[in-house]
Amino acid sequence: MENYNIIGKDIPRVDGREKATGAAIYTDDIKLPGMLYGKLLRSPVAHARIRSIDISKAKRLPGVKCVITGEDTPKIKYGNWRLFPITQDEYPLAIDKVRFIGDEVAAVAAVDPDTAAQALELIDVEYEELPTVFDVLASVRKNAPVIHDTSPNNISVDRKIEYGNIRKGFAESDYVREDIFTVHAVSPAYLEPCASLAQCDQEGRITLWTSTQTPYIVQCLLASTLDMRENDIRVIKPTVGGGFGGKMELRPWEFCAAFMARLTGKPVKFTLTREEELTTGRRRHPMRLKSKVGFKKDGTLVAKDLHIYLDGGAYNAMGPTATFLCGNFGAMLYRYPNYRFLGQHVYTNKPPASAMRGFGAPQSLFAAESQMNMAAEELGIDPIDLRIKNAMVTGDTIPDVATISSCGFIESLEAVRKMSNWKRNRGRKKKGYGIGIGCYSFISGGVFNWFNTQYPFSAAEVKVFSDGTAHLLTMASDIGQGANTVLQQILAEELGLKMEDIRLTAADTAMTPQADLGTWGSRVTLMAGNAIKDAARQIKETLFGAVSARFNLNVIFDLECKDGRVQAKGKPDRGIPFGEAVAMVQKTNRGIPIVARGYYTPRGKGLVTPAFSFGAQVAEVGVDAETGVVQVKKMYTAHDCGTVINPMAVEGQLEGSIHMGLGYALSEELVMKDGKTLTNTFLDYKLPTAMDMPPGESVCIETYEPEGPMGAKEAGEGLASPTAPAIAEAVYHATGYRCKDLPITPEKILKR
Amino acid sequence: MENYNIIGKDIPRVDGREKATGAAIYTDDIKLPGMLYGKLLRSPVAHARIRSIDISKAKRLPGVKCVITGEDTPKIKYGNWRLFPITQDEYPLAIDKVRFIGDEVAAVAAVDPDTAAQALELIDVEYEELPTVFDVLASVRKNAPVIHDTSPNNISVDRKIEYGNIRKGFAESDYVREDIFTVHAVSPAYLEPCASLAQCDQEGRITLWTSTQTPYIVQCLLASTLDMRENDIRVIKPTVGGGFGGKMELRPWEFCAAFMARLTGKPVKFTLTREEELTTGRRRHPMRLKSKVGFKKDGTLVAKDLHIYLDGGAYNAMGPTATFLCGNFGAMLYRYPNYRFLGQHVYTNKPPASAMRGFGAPQSLFAAESQMNMAAEELGIDPIDLRIKNAMVTGDTIPDVATISSCGFIESLEAVRKMSNWKRNRGRKKKGYGIGIGCYSFISGGVFNWFNTQYPFSAAEVKVFSDGTAHLLTMASDIGQGANTVLQQILAEELGLKMEDIRLTAADTAMTPQADLGTWGSRVTLMAGNAIKDAARQIKETLFGAVSARFNLNVIFDLECKDGRVQAKGKPDRGIPFGEAVAMVQKTNRGIPIVARGYYTPRGKGLVTPAFSFGAQVAEVGVDAETGVVQVKKMYTAHDCGTVINPMAVEGQLEGSIHMGLGYALSEELVMKDGKTLTNTFLDYKLPTAMDMPPGESVCIETYEPEGPMGAKEAGEGLASPTAPAIAEAVYHATGYRCKDLPITPEKILKR
Repeated sequence: MENYNIIGKDIPRVDGREKATGAAIYTDDIKLPGMLYGKLLRSPVAHARIRSIDISKAKRLPGVKCVITGEDTPKIKYGNWRLFPITQDEYPLAIDKVRFIGDEVAAVAAVDPDTAAQALELIDVEYEELPTVFDVLASVRKNAPVIHDTSPNNISVDRKIEYGNIRKGFAESDYVREDIFTVHAVSPAYLEPCASLAQCDQEGRITLWTSTQTPYIVQCLLASTLDMRENDIRVIKPTVGGGFGGKMELRPWEFCAAFMARLTGKPVKFTLTREEELTTGRRRHPMRLKSKVGFKKDGTLVAKDLHIYLDGGAYNAMGPTATFLCGNFGAMLYRYPNYRFLGQHVYTNKPPASAMRGFGAPQSLFAAESQMNMAAEELGIDPIDLRIKNAMVTGDTIPDVATISSCGFIESLEAVRKMSNWKRNRGRKKKGYGIGIGCYSFISGGVFNWFNTQYPFSAAEVKVFSDGTAHLLTMASDIGQGANTVLQQILAEELGLKMEDIRLTAADTAMTPQADLGTWGSRVTLMAGNAIKDAARQIKETLFGAVSARFNLNVIFDLECKDGRVQAKGKPDRGIPFGEAVAMVQKTNRGIPIVARGYYTPRGKGLVTPAFSFGAQVAEVGVDAETGVVQVKKMYTAHDCGTVINPMAVEGQLEGSIHMGLGYALSEELVMKDGKTLTNTFLDYKLPTAMDMPPGESVCIETYEPEGPMGAKEAGEGLASPTAPAIAEAVYHATGYRCKDLPITPEKILKR
Repeated sequence: MENYNIIGKDIPRVDGREKATGAAIYTDDIKLPGMLYGKLLRSPVAHARIRSIDISKAKRLPGVKCVITGEDTPKIKYGNWRLFPITQDEYPLAIDKVRFIGDEVAAVAAVDPDTAAQALELIDVEYEELPTVFDVLASVRKNAPVIHDTSPNNISVDRKIEYGNIRKGFAESDYVREDIFTVHAVSPAYLEPCASLAQCDQEGRITLWTSTQTPYIVQCLLASTLDMRENDIRVIKPTVGGGFGGKMELRPWEFCAAFMARLTGKPVKFTLTREEELTTGRRRHPMRLKSKVGFKKDGTLVAKDLHIYLDGGAYNAMGPTATFLCGNFGAMLYRYPNYRFLGQHVYTNKPPASAMRGFGAPQSLFAAESQMNMAAEELGIDPIDLRIKNAMVTGDTIPDVATISSCGFIESLEAVRKMSNWKRNRGRKKKGYGIGIGCYSFISGGVFNWFNTQYPFSAAEVKVFSDGTAHLLTMASDIGQGANTVLQQILAEELGLKMEDIRLTAADTAMTPQADLGTWGSRVTLMAGNAIKDAARQIKETLFGAVSARFNLNVIFDLECKDGRVQAKGKPDRGIPFGEAVAMVQKTNRGIPIVARGYYTPRGKGLVTPAFSFGAQVAEVGVDAETGVVQVKKMYTAHDCGTVINPMAVEGQLEGSIHMGLGYALSEELVMKDGKTLTNTFLDYKLPTAMDMPPGESVCIETYEPEGPMGAKEAGEGLASPTAPAIAEAVYHATGYRCKDLPITPEKILKR
């Protein structure tokens, strides 16, 4: 391993102080002179034809400056899957039909939020209600109500993966089992509700400040829905308080803010309420997973046949990606010589599901890992041994899909076995005590180009100055995960500078280099990191040239940027300060500043991702026999994220994942009735609190990922997956209750 | 002349609408949360040692958040002449001494402007008054009070120009005359008083929004006075309401805003009052000019010996440049085979003079042109004929100083002769009627690198997009002169796009390319224009390549960007839309966006400027015999600004110049008593009003300047010079009163 100065160190978040002191500026903090406040009118019914909308009374309310319905808009559909326009099924405001309770029907902009809210009540909408469907099985049934005419069977997307020979595989299996699992919807529950502020200048160009994970995607889709040119739109991402996948699409309030700013000539801001977020916001896909696996007697995996219905709700959103990924994740972790997957994305009259931390993995791996635990028991093999027997290793491939270029999975399994004292604890027969394991693999960004971008997947511009500083510009988006810190670290390390030597400008589509696809699928560290390395390499070439000339170095000398200097490797006396080297290059070029642009697009690594992370987690639980309440006592985690860029940041990701995993396993649930989400406050929607967090031990299994910057790959998103199956297995170990339908509630345990 | 689509057309100002509607954001319009308001304590005495400053009472005033004196600061001097650090003679706040009434002594930041003003009154300063001097002749006298210890004779800068043989020249002259002229101080009187707002982020980096002509200069000097790194400072120029040379340096309020923002952690804003502007602000240099010229009997100029004392006030400011330029302008317009110049910049206890529209030319040319008129009379030659006889022409040089690569001077003289019906009107003997001529030449930006920049003089970044748009980034500063419009025109023409296809980002030192020296000396159109052309050339090369390949064009084909297309010249069917060509190039480069950076630094054109403008102006006046009041009846102007980029913009410059020239000649004056400026409001300081503006006729003599973009050079700043001598000559023609000491007041005319 290289001897790094900044990589691998506990570097505090670059935005830590401003967040802790409240100085950070989130979108809702921005106030512009003359700004109007927007509110959305949402459908109170789950499925209906809109007969008429009367906005005349609302328009007459003093203080109301603008009221719009879908009819006022250019009526252009959008969706993230630009590659297949047929999947683009949403209008910013409903045209003709509403498809879920909360579907956006009209928007108001007024001088204050109360007036806007009052105006909403003055809008009369006449609905012709239609039959509804809220369940995937009901939805795919013949004669079910059709939600989109383009999908008469309510299945919008089919995705298949198949290799080996599935029939032959099962025929050769000694032990086959088939299970059906269901998983529920949960909310990303980011602490910053969505907010957007748009301004239209007198040339008609729009600037949108918005709480988003994907400024570039919002720029492009906003332009197309407004029927404008992409570069007449500028999207700026202020500080963002979490996204977890829920803020990676164009959203109606972004469109409405921009559209009404253009109409009124005044800035227009929308800020969603927590109730709107919980009852209508994007959520993790509920799924119905039928999984059949076959083993040899000795535990060798032979075949797997996986069918998944994704409950997509009323629109596709990121569903097409989840539909593919849950099948990909079903084939990960272990070697399946014969594999078949069919994923089907099903419309229902519910708020759309979309990407959420894990992007198909938590669901798919809950099923796969639970089933692995069930098989281990029946085969009479220790679950860790069974996993190690079948575990993927570096160099494995999934035909036509993926190449595993680094894999610390077996090491992770061995590590949690040791940490958790697995053998002893698994043998304990204390009442209510249980220990269980779950594992994961995840992507480090996607190769699939569903957005059909014309640009490289990530870009970085680096300027260096004679005062010894550098300016890093990137469209990559820190949404709280710490991307800015990690990217600054990578550049600082590459240029031999200190963190404070680097100024960062990020996520402004007009000022940062085209493009970056945004923050999702754990792509930023690897992709933006590689783009930065590319830019730094170009800069170092020019600095090395200048220093070579200055010291008349033989061409075979290796040079380095280190400790604020540019010097011959191992001969620091043949070197000069970084800023001096910059000045020398500038003199050589008659003053021209040193600017480099670096790019990264993954190629040659299969269909899915340039790199996979791996890990294993063991949960110890105590289950109260009388109440059925599960208390997680301790979590042991070992995970392979390649080179650790920032241990403190990885630890934060790990803790956040466990927190989310706990909620997914035990307490969080969007309770719905007839299409209406009942859990509409954080009092009802049971996020775990800090008090619920168990102590934990963790270890990073460091591998070197050849495709990653400095060998790094994904950390933290994959970890959203193992917690639920580990807890489920521990609960089973403690109580004999086997959960196949998340969440694991006291009622279910007691009812067993 | 090329067949242009946009160049040479009346294109409305790109910021015209937002200015007319009040939507434009000036610095003082910006409000940040928690912002403090700053005020400066200024010296009430003209020359004193500071014995002590007691700020304790001011600090205790509720609402006061920060009080500083020079002692609190890093005590680092600044000045625009970085090339000669000895000339850098100003501290942001006085250290030890004050040198003029208004010198900045302390600064306060408080929660509102009234509290800040009240706090100023609570600061006790004990001054030990020193002898004062307010006049250049008194100041250079032996035993005069010494204002700066570094200049014991009060002369801070000597500049010389000499060529030919001055003694021999005068010996060979048939007619020699020597005159002494004095010119007075006038205020730039920009309508937007100076304002600055600074914010310090939690990493200690500073952003300064400021009303400036020179963001890059402010960035550099602010960094050095704060003892910070250049790139830890970001300077942004919002809309600016005029500068005219008065906003091209670092100013104390910029330093204080930044310094106190860093101390308090809160944004700090300073906005000057009109009174501060008029009584302490930068002003045009008063000068005492002794000029001796020698002619042959036939009018041929033989020799000129020019000595100028510049009254610099208390500090150098831009004085060193003016000291050189007034000598250069003394040698312009006509062929002086033998020339000698000595300029001396003299300190006095008055507010510093600095650059103001014309930068040494209005003073020098008032003397030169008046003397030319006087000589014409005595030689019995028509003043226009005398000028034509000696006029510079294309190809003339001033040895070691300048090369005239385009010159429409004779054409200008012939044009005004014709327009004004000179012969007839000059012969008219109507009482109180007069007609007179004045001429000018001016620079199109400076070659002299007094700021000692490490960067090219001007830079442009151009990004082009597949949606058919382009983004132009430049640090060039529109301060009301219309630079943004002209630069957008140049890029639009080069790329064959429309004005609205171009987004412009300007004058933000962190985001626009390093560097641009700012707006002064009429440098922007030529220098930034050339940088843009350089960038556009690179972009066109790549687009032309793609289109050549697409249509399999023979390499000898010439291509063009025109009408939104990239096509073979003369064969528009062999071409594709601009955006498609961009997309093709991107595909060729696997998505990499097209970005080009262009630069310009003048070289090989002498010491002064890459290009000189020329022109002539005739004034017709009526002088009331009883009151002595001069009314300008009509102005005729012919000027050579090379290719006219935007006739409407040139017309605006011309009108503005005449307006300023009228004020300089007739009414504006900073009246002072014992170092105190008495004209402290616009009621007292007599700017001409719209009612005073005479009708005018004008013509552009189009030449092609090889060094200018599309052949363009300076327009509008040079025109600040001819108006005063033309009016003075017309008044002489009408009354026999020969003004050698501006302004021309009724009192002087009547007293004659």
